[in-house]
Amino acid sequence: MSVDETDAVEPLSAAGKPLTKRGEATRTRLLEAAEHVFAELGYHEASIVRITERAGIGLGTFYLYFDSKQAIFEALAIDLNRRVRHAMSDEMAGATTRIEAERAGFAGFFRFTAEHPALYRVVRESEYVSPGTMRLHYQRIVEGYEEGLRAAQAEGDVDPGLDPEVTAWTLMGIGELIGMRYLLWERPEGQVPRLPDGVFESVMRVVRNALAPGEERR
Amino acid sequence: MSVDETDAVEPLSAAGKPLTKRGEATRTRLLEAAEHVFAELGYHEASIVRITERAGIGLGTFYLYFDSKQAIFEALAIDLNRRVRHAMSDEMAGATTRIEAERAGFAGFFRFTAEHPALYRVVRESEYVSPGTMRLHYQRIVEGYEEGLRAAQAEGDVDPGLDPEVTAWTLMGIGELIGMRYLLWERPEGQVPRLPDGVFESVMRVVRNALAPGEERR
Repeated sequence: MSVDETDAVEPLSAAGKPLTKRGEATRTRLLEAAEHVFAELGYHEASIVRITERAGIGLGTFYLYFDSKQAIFEALAIDLNRRVRHAMSDEMAGATTRIEAERAGFAGFFRFTAEHPALYRVVRESEYVSPGTMRLHYQRIVEGYEEGLRAAQAEGDVDPGLDPEVTAWTLMGIGELIGMRYLLWERPEGQVPRLPDGVFESVMRVVRNALAPGEERR
Repeated sequence: MSVDETDAVEPLSAAGKPLTKRGEATRTRLLEAAEHVFAELGYHEASIVRITERAGIGLGTFYLYFDSKQAIFEALAIDLNRRVRHAMSDEMAGATTRIEAERAGFAGFFRFTAEHPALYRVVRESEYVSPGTMRLHYQRIVEGYEEGLRAAQAEGDVDPGLDPEVTAWTLMGIGELIGMRYLLWERPEGQVPRLPDGVFESVMRVVRNALAPGEERR
């Protein structure tokens, strides 16, 4: 997988003002609490009170940072999107071929999914709570991905007959359902799950087959 | 894609009794209304009254067929699952090679998704409303799929190095995100969308690459 590194993050107050260092730390604590509350209860059952209680922050203070439950939900979706893309790009930093980059990107994505099960629930619920945010999530991942595939095609590293945009969506689909099946559905009580090596290698064989130019297959 | 044909469907009343022909027709009308109401409003906003109003059926009659909103939601999820699998297997009936079967199965899946956008919403919401139903949806598709891949490997039609179960999940992921992006997000007002031929062919190239044994690639 591949990511776009260009998103600048300047967290703002509810009134649209830049935050102090201390303000940023408070906002981060609220987002961390929101991640747990939304993942556990879902959007409808979650409440601002639950979030502030978990964060140990007063209800009045909440409104300095976010206008509403929907506002913190959207901020969380954007924050998780930024973090999953960074988890992927961090892993990919040393890759020299496209297939190495794919291995690293998928590994980063699966690790993040294991550690942050909220990602799936928030993305899926955002389809109804905030459709624009949901599309942004996928589009931001696809854009960087598409670019990476196009560059690899130019280098002869990827089948030149593939459409980069459609292929990016297929690879995201692979990551999404494998993560759901082998990480979200298999969470040992109180532990962070890990994708079994055999499953990871099987996924990578599918990806390698799908992308490799004819003469380089396997 | 591939499906399991073995699910017997014998609709029952809320009391667990077999239905008359007329009873079956009433139950079907309720499910059709539920498909629209759940797709439009989502589980939380939907109500039994909305469903019976849309079906033109009295509220008292509803309870002869379903105990609760959750019961009709689960019945709808199971019904959509059965119908999407049949849409796929109907298309696949004449296929003689694995790749022909994949083309036909994906075509059936995309056609059904275009005509029944409720499928996605119901499956995704069932993760929280009725987790067992959601897993059943995916598992029923995967089981038949896995079997088809295993048989095709034995015939030399599919890369013998692929793990059939993991591969089935990757192919489902491809179908799911392509359907979301190109069918659910692009619904012209009041029309049933159609996957552009170019997108379909691009998806099939990914699938063909992923599955083909080395010597037969392209």
